Amino acid sequence: MRDDIFPFKWTEVQFVYTIAIWILIASIARILFSYLKFLTKWLPDSSLIIIVGLLLGFVLHLTSLNGASLDAEIFFLYLLPPIIFDAGYFMPNRAFFKNIDSILLFSLLGTVWNCFAIGGSLLLLSKYDVFSVQFSTFEIFIFASLVSASDPVAIIVVFEEIHVNEFLFINVFGEALFNDAISVVLYNMFISFLARDLATLNLWDYASRGLSFFVVALGGVAIGVVFAFATSLATKYTHGIKIVAPVLIFLIPYMGYLTAEMVSFSAIIAIAVCGMVMKQYVKGNITNSAANSVKYFTKIISQTSEIVIYMFLGLSTVSADHYFDVLFIAATIFFTLFYRTLGVLFQCYFLNKFRSEQFKLQDQFILAYGGLKGAIAYGLVVSIPAAVSAKPMFITTTIALIYFNVFIQGITIRPLINLLKIKTEEEKTVTMTESVYNKYLDYMMTGIEDIAGQKGHYNLVARFERFNSSILKPIFMRHQKREKNDFASVIRSYEKLILEDALEKIKNNRLNSTELNLDSFLQPGEDMEQLYTLFGEFLKKRGGIEGNGRSEDDIQDDYFAEVQAHECTNFGTELKEIENKDA
Amino acid sequence: MRDDIFPFKWTEVQFVYTIAIWILIASIARILFSYLKFLTKWLPDSSLIIIVGLLLGFVLHLTSLNGASLDAEIFFLYLLPPIIFDAGYFMPNRAFFKNIDSILLFSLLGTVWNCFAIGGSLLLLSKYDVFSVQFSTFEIFIFASLVSASDPVAIIVVFEEIHVNEFLFINVFGEALFNDAISVVLYNMFISFLARDLATLNLWDYASRGLSFFVVALGGVAIGVVFAFATSLATKYTHGIKIVAPVLIFLIPYMGYLTAEMVSFSAIIAIAVCGMVMKQYVKGNITNSAANSVKYFTKIISQTSEIVIYMFLGLSTVSADHYFDVLFIAATIFFTLFYRTLGVLFQCYFLNKFRSEQFKLQDQFILAYGGLKGAIAYGLVVSIPAAVSAKPMFITTTIALIYFNVFIQGITIRPLINLLKIKTEEEKTVTMTESVYNKYLDYMMTGIEDIAGQKGHYNLVARFERFNSSILKPIFMRHQKREKNDFASVIRSYEKLILEDALEKIKNNRLNSTELNLDSFLQPGEDMEQLYTLFGEFLKKRGGIEGNGRSEDDIQDDYFAEVQAHECTNFGTELKEIENKDA
Repeated sequence: MRDDIFPFKWTEVQFVYTIAIWILIASIARILFSYLKFLTKWLPDSSLIIIVGLLLGFVLHLTSLNGASLDAEIFFLYLLPPIIFDAGYFMPNRAFFKNIDSILLFSLLGTVWNCFAIGGSLLLLSKYDVFSVQFSTFEIFIFASLVSASDPVAIIVVFEEIHVNEFLFINVFGEALFNDAISVVLYNMFISFLARDLATLNLWDYASRGLSFFVVALGGVAIGVVFAFATSLATKYTHGIKIVAPVLIFLIPYMGYLTAEMVSFSAIIAIAVCGMVMKQYVKGNITNSAANSVKYFTKIISQTSEIVIYMFLGLSTVSADHYFDVLFIAATIFFTLFYRTLGVLFQCYFLNKFRSEQFKLQDQFILAYGGLKGAIAYGLVVSIPAAVSAKPMFITTTIALIYFNVFIQGITIRPLINLLKIKTEEEKTVTMTESVYNKYLDYMMTGIEDIAGQKGHYNLVARFERFNSSILKPIFMRHQKREKNDFASVIRSYEKLILEDALEKIKNNRLNSTELNLDSFLQPGEDMEQLYTLFGEFLKKRGGIEGNGRSEDDIQDDYFAEVQAHECTNFGTELKEIENKDA
Repeated sequence: MRDDIFPFKWTEVQFVYTIAIWILIASIARILFSYLKFLTKWLPDSSLIIIVGLLLGFVLHLTSLNGASLDAEIFFLYLLPPIIFDAGYFMPNRAFFKNIDSILLFSLLGTVWNCFAIGGSLLLLSKYDVFSVQFSTFEIFIFASLVSASDPVAIIVVFEEIHVNEFLFINVFGEALFNDAISVVLYNMFISFLARDLATLNLWDYASRGLSFFVVALGGVAIGVVFAFATSLATKYTHGIKIVAPVLIFLIPYMGYLTAEMVSFSAIIAIAVCGMVMKQYVKGNITNSAANSVKYFTKIISQTSEIVIYMFLGLSTVSADHYFDVLFIAATIFFTLFYRTLGVLFQCYFLNKFRSEQFKLQDQFILAYGGLKGAIAYGLVVSIPAAVSAKPMFITTTIALIYFNVFIQGITIRPLINLLKIKTEEEKTVTMTESVYNKYLDYMMTGIEDIAGQKGHYNLVARFERFNSSILKPIFMRHQKREKNDFASVIRSYEKLILEDALEKIKNNRLNSTELNLDSFLQPGEDMEQLYTLFGEFLKKRGGIEGNGRSEDDIQDDYFAEVQAHECTNFGTELKEIENKDA
């Protein structure tokens, strides 16, 4: 009778309910961790989430419920794109292009070197029957290709909690983003070689694969740029119907990712580039409040994806078919660290000859030690054809390697940074002078290059900026008239910063005394009236300043600032609490 | 060779790519419509989207590609919840509780009346062999139950574009939300009776189903309240980890929906109530910027769902197995309109005897004419067991009914409102006085009731507010100390409005002249210094005022205000454009 009127419909909601419960558990766990400060001091969030996933996996295992494992398709189609889009959208473009030489070298040459050195060494050891399972040459190189690329997700979650300087961060992170192309090419190459005999492979087979790297990488970049332009152009016309803009901002880059995935270009590069390129145009096309919401939601979706990935990883550890070979695991971990260090040392020696900003020895250590592997490797290893008899050993080893990276390296990297006295960026307050000066310096460097007759980096940047503001911006942005790129933007950012500083002063003042002390923020030569006008201006300009209410945003405009913001917000809330106690 | 290096992986991305393309087409269509003002003047957006869906369906049909149809599971598990959550979250609670009597009467008695009157009439006609397909008593009552309830989604999309007053809107919309319980009960009852013989049914069968209504409705309410409290409590502790709060704000209500769905309570009521209850607590627990993003995203997800639903509806029209019976369609449309009008007239006559705010004859007309049917009916009709031989006819008729409602009624309702001279709310500027006065009036009415010895509506409201601020708020909100509910809140809202008005004046002033004209916003007795202090106060208080930057938000705090906001924002952008031309 009861079933008749109130049928219990578990099967219908099972799938989505399970996902919801996982996210809920992970969210509650994160809330708990935020109170267990003594724990998170030395254990990164990511490792805590994996532990929760592991515990949950054991519970499901004991109750003989079905412990789900990370499905490669779900991972690559749904969980990975938000994280990479987030990375691209919050990428500090300026720092990225400044280090493009080292990033490309690390991600291209470094990864190839790692792959062949690791694969070759493991192959050599297996000839001496060190490992309990046999594998062919191509099989071990498939494995080597997936453990040789560092993982942007792992690096984000670990580096979000340690505070290295921007120079180091952008190098480690940029490499992780862009080594995807080479790692995809290597992986696909060895998978396609699997079915064939080593003897039948001719030079063309190798050469075509080598060339295909450029197609995969540049194809990814091209798709990213095209979809970024499409997004910018589409949002340009959304002022009549505001709700549509944020939909397009997520939808079109995601379609770019899917398109790249479909034609086997680097989807990661595509969506990262798309985020980097579209950012500046899109922001001008939507309202402040929409821009802020987009920022917020990018963060929310990407962090939720990260949690689900690490949760899944914990669950998968319990439910996977394991084959432990301690020697193979130990050899893999040793070789990944050893050859990476070797590669970094060599590449940095080479780079330091040509660069003004040098890689110091401590920097090189963090570059080597911070090349963490993560969930992407796991997603690739479970996609290896089942015909490969060593697959269970590869899976177990990959999981062990990820655990070693996230737990051992993730936990020790902070003390090591302190030990090595690496400059960590404190609360990054770009002062008015600094910000204007940066821009000014660029123009000066361009001038110097011009005089010296060199067509160098700064000249290229200046050329692009001219092209951008005279051609691209008018096409992709609303109310953007063709204008010569003059110093107006410098003046504008100066104005903006003056206004923000004024606000900051007021705020600080209000914290210290309940009465307004006017004199404290009057500069010599200013009177009240001027200050007042400033406020009027400020209130009016709020609308015009592109989503930069530094004092209001929870989410920063650029990835590095976001990473740094942790401490500032904590500081902010503490201040507030003190204030509340006083009241 | 090419396939080897760059395999074309369409099948892997097909599902999600298809969805993405639909949303993209719908978004671009909406952007185009926003430029075709002459079209949208008399054709609602929803009907335009259906037309796009129809065209797309025809194209897919002609190219013999698979034209997808709206899957009931996808509809009820993924597309419906965001729309209803949005409705609950933006519900003007005050107006809702003021009209709770009429809403409950319409949604309960009105729906039962419609169902039995429509079903009975159609059954009677079929006895005279008017229709080409035979159906049993229970079969026609299944159909009657799904065409007798008005649809919140259809009502939102149509009423968003016409601007009726709040009183009418809340009655039509509230009924549509809450008649879900009765319609679910009736539908499930007749489905469960299908397998049984009419003769074997005893009184208990009917009585138990009648009673089950209360379980379904109150169970939905209970689940909604519990999950709202859970959300509030969870967000209370998220200040250390801000990104988690918005995740929980969407996740927990959605789990409430799934839970209600699972135990066969009214999931629609559950998530609507959850949104209504949690709103006030949650807003105090998260930052302004998070609150604003949540508002934005609720809108984005719900509007995207609406679009996808109407797109699907267009596609389904082409791909469904149709069985046209023009007489059955005509009879259904006539009976739904006729009996609804009859029911509304009778119920309003009864309600007017007890209410201070009367339903005028024009109001009654809109109540009857605005009871639109929509996608929920379609979701239910495709879920009818295939054994029912009249199912194709029911599907075709339901689609025809929805088209009639969205096109004919959706298009004619605006001219009719103008014709009937129904008070449409203009730009709803709650002035300072009005807002304070509303609150003040409540207290006064409570006093009058107290003096008169009545325990009436206002007394109940006042009691709840005392309970809320002394017990519930301290439990569910941060920094909320137990406090007596006094006039402090009145004073606070007065302060808030003064500050907002000051800002408004500045802004208007800035629009009219480029120079600041200080005198214009100095009130008698005020000097510059005071005004300046006001600004300092305002800037400080911005953080404290609960997400109410009326001048900044794209998204309004309450559904009705949102509905009205269309015009204001258009007005705003026009002003801006004029300003830009001047510059």
